[in-house]
Amino acid sequence: MDREDVSGSERGVADARVEALRVRLGNDLVLSGPATEHYCRDWHGDITTGAVAVVRPRSTAEVSAAVKAIGALGLSIVPQGGNTGLVLGATPDDPAGQVVISLERMTAIRRLDVDDFSAVVEAGIVLSEFKDRVEAAGLYFPLALGAQGSCRIGGNVSTNAGGINVLRYGMTRELVLGLEVVLPDGSVFDGLSTLRKDNRGIDLKQLFIGAEGTLGIVTAVSVKLMPPAEQVATALLGLNALSDAIALYRRARRDCCDLMSAFEFMPPVAFTLAREAMPDLAMPMPGDYPAYVLMEISGSGLVDIDDLMQRFLQGVMEDGLVLDGVVAVSRAQARNLWAFREGMNEGQAKRGPHLRTDVSVPLSKLADFVQQAEAAVMSALPDCLCVSYGHVGDGNVHLNVLPPAGLTREKTDQLIYQAKGLINGVLLGFCGSISAEHGIGRLKKSDFISGLPQTQAHLLNAIKRAIDPRIIMNPGCQLNFAKDS
Amino acid sequence: MDREDVSGSERGVADARVEALRVRLGNDLVLSGPATEHYCRDWHGDITTGAVAVVRPRSTAEVSAAVKAIGALGLSIVPQGGNTGLVLGATPDDPAGQVVISLERMTAIRRLDVDDFSAVVEAGIVLSEFKDRVEAAGLYFPLALGAQGSCRIGGNVSTNAGGINVLRYGMTRELVLGLEVVLPDGSVFDGLSTLRKDNRGIDLKQLFIGAEGTLGIVTAVSVKLMPPAEQVATALLGLNALSDAIALYRRARRDCCDLMSAFEFMPPVAFTLAREAMPDLAMPMPGDYPAYVLMEISGSGLVDIDDLMQRFLQGVMEDGLVLDGVVAVSRAQARNLWAFREGMNEGQAKRGPHLRTDVSVPLSKLADFVQQAEAAVMSALPDCLCVSYGHVGDGNVHLNVLPPAGLTREKTDQLIYQAKGLINGVLLGFCGSISAEHGIGRLKKSDFISGLPQTQAHLLNAIKRAIDPRIIMNPGCQLNFAKDS
Repeated sequence: MDREDVSGSERGVADARVEALRVRLGNDLVLSGPATEHYCRDWHGDITTGAVAVVRPRSTAEVSAAVKAIGALGLSIVPQGGNTGLVLGATPDDPAGQVVISLERMTAIRRLDVDDFSAVVEAGIVLSEFKDRVEAAGLYFPLALGAQGSCRIGGNVSTNAGGINVLRYGMTRELVLGLEVVLPDGSVFDGLSTLRKDNRGIDLKQLFIGAEGTLGIVTAVSVKLMPPAEQVATALLGLNALSDAIALYRRARRDCCDLMSAFEFMPPVAFTLAREAMPDLAMPMPGDYPAYVLMEISGSGLVDIDDLMQRFLQGVMEDGLVLDGVVAVSRAQARNLWAFREGMNEGQAKRGPHLRTDVSVPLSKLADFVQQAEAAVMSALPDCLCVSYGHVGDGNVHLNVLPPAGLTREKTDQLIYQAKGLINGVLLGFCGSISAEHGIGRLKKSDFISGLPQTQAHLLNAIKRAIDPRIIMNPGCQLNFAKDS
Repeated sequence: MDREDVSGSERGVADARVEALRVRLGNDLVLSGPATEHYCRDWHGDITTGAVAVVRPRSTAEVSAAVKAIGALGLSIVPQGGNTGLVLGATPDDPAGQVVISLERMTAIRRLDVDDFSAVVEAGIVLSEFKDRVEAAGLYFPLALGAQGSCRIGGNVSTNAGGINVLRYGMTRELVLGLEVVLPDGSVFDGLSTLRKDNRGIDLKQLFIGAEGTLGIVTAVSVKLMPPAEQVATALLGLNALSDAIALYRRARRDCCDLMSAFEFMPPVAFTLAREAMPDLAMPMPGDYPAYVLMEISGSGLVDIDDLMQRFLQGVMEDGLVLDGVVAVSRAQARNLWAFREGMNEGQAKRGPHLRTDVSVPLSKLADFVQQAEAAVMSALPDCLCVSYGHVGDGNVHLNVLPPAGLTREKTDQLIYQAKGLINGVLLGFCGSISAEHGIGRLKKSDFISGLPQTQAHLLNAIKRAIDPRIIMNPGCQLNFAKDS
């Protein structure tokens, strides 16, 4: 944030620009001054920055007009949905040169076609609100993540959000049928089809999914909907080791067909952490096991899901793969099991600043990776606590490292930095990804760039220049794009 | 094919270029003269053209060398897999200016990791051979289409192939985890990861899937593998109308969870056509119904698939949605049911030249579209036969039109052209796609271009120029890219 301290003359220029935006777009669309603060703070509240203004359009046409007006002033644009991202993709980093365009006013469901199992929805609708509206129509939108009460669907698309149902339904990319995008020149890419199959050449919409707003602003999305899961069976299982969790997953893939909707692993400390955040949580099962799996099977209609879970567990317990387990017999019990998974995150937050990672490795190497990476951290930083959990079927681990309490912030940050280096070093040997689901944004940019092969860097630059030659769309995010001289 | 008649001096130039390729790449890699004919004829055998040479590299390094050598000679490249495409995407159209690069020698499976449910495979392996190798390892690769005994996996990726299992497993795009691509400058994009989740920014590989070789040559692919479907239940059902087939599909989506692997509709004439090609086929069920559905449920493990099919059919027959049906009780019977679906295509081919379409519409509008499009054709061309069949769950119809026998080729072609115009006219009103799964290639290029919105055209051109500024990669396919002057 090298321009946080804006000089007097710069402030005058900024004021003139705000005035120009107000004239061109209307007062109601433009926020400036203290009203912009909410849009310039990241989700964790760690980073507060600023922007020339925040523009809040109500329609695609207004987004287009805003993009043209901002571009004409020589300013650049930071598109923003719910601003719940974890990598600073929607947080401005140049207070004197950037305008935030917030999609929060574009919340309409343009169409919800039950017979087509599809919906067309504007980018600014909050995910949980959309899920509720779909449910009220008798269908189901499977994207599910911790921030769903605040994140917005356009942000989910721009970050290709993951979550707990990826195993069954894929990342956001696999749920998207079409997109409407305002491009850096203000023109509108209208690709809001709901066709299931459309093989007319290069699939342009794919470029914008996961681009974190660097190629354009997603203004509307058409998505697949599913039959609701009328039956859900949730089980918490105690195992001998993480490697057994991998073996159990492979077994479950076959035994439960494609009906698994979640398969999460957790360490024993998960329960301690969860109860630090939620002391009233009832321990779900007696005993203490080296590894835990939280597993969900779900389906609609004629398959007896509870019976499937029972017969599956019977088999794997007879074979010694699962030592003990508890199956929820009510929705309340199932929620209690999931509360440990969610409470574990809150418990980590309560312990103070710590390293959050979001890495992925090939599924067959998950247990080896966790073992090696934890060993590397524990050997170099024996006072730290490793908490590894995640989505087994996706090869996605959140290997977090908690420094001990009572250190200075400087010392804590140093431990976090060291731990990240150690984990990324091990990750390299496994050909893993430093960002399985959170994206790159500004936070992971330098790590991303340092690992980027030259051919990929060349392609990304060529595409950026082809679509955004003035480099006005979310500069500073993902890559450092140099303007043409 | 305006350069079919190559003049003497042009032939001399061509010979010199072939010689230059031989010197640079080695004799063994370069075919010329009559040996190239096989590579210059389309799958239907309707179109025969020519090429300066055919280059058959054995490795990614040799593909890279070939691309550099061909580019240096000022020639362009037509990448080719099994050459089984239906839209002339891999058939050269400039015999004096193009070199075919065939991937047929790159057939290795580089890695098959059962515990990771993934494989890394070279572009030239024949699909059915790959499927067999995967099956031998105890897993399953779900891509399944008529040409699987000849098509090659690189072509499947480049055309984003569909087929009969899209309903359950998606198009080829959804099966691809990573790609290796030789770019137009000969550099190698190495993205052969098998990570399930990798959200490091823009997903470059998506650009090459469905690009039909216009942005580079796919040389290797990493793909998802699945547990094999140990149980398969196949049923042929008689219904009152196509609209009932749509209603039946919606019911099946709920009742059978995500376990349906095929849901095809066929008209009564399917059986006549199939028996014209295969006279020995036993009629599967008595009676004659206005519409038929061929449905498959499959799974592994603990779900009783036969029982699920029985209970599903009991419900829908009680409700009058299905009038009669037959469930295969053996693999041989199931093959017999599928033989009608496949024989129907052969029967159409035996009746001579006809219009083959491959359109898609929103699922909820499928029956209306077929009814309106058939009515439009029958009213204008009452002597023609409409044969509509396809993949209900994908909204994908092959609405084919067979002119009467005994006409001149010219008159037949005229009827085909008229019928296409009528169908595309109706399709426009349904916001449908002229290519649900076959691609654009050269055959559908003019229809594609005429329906292309300006913003999309601008983006496609910008991306093409960014990645292939010399326009040497499959020019003439998908769009008419003008070289920079």
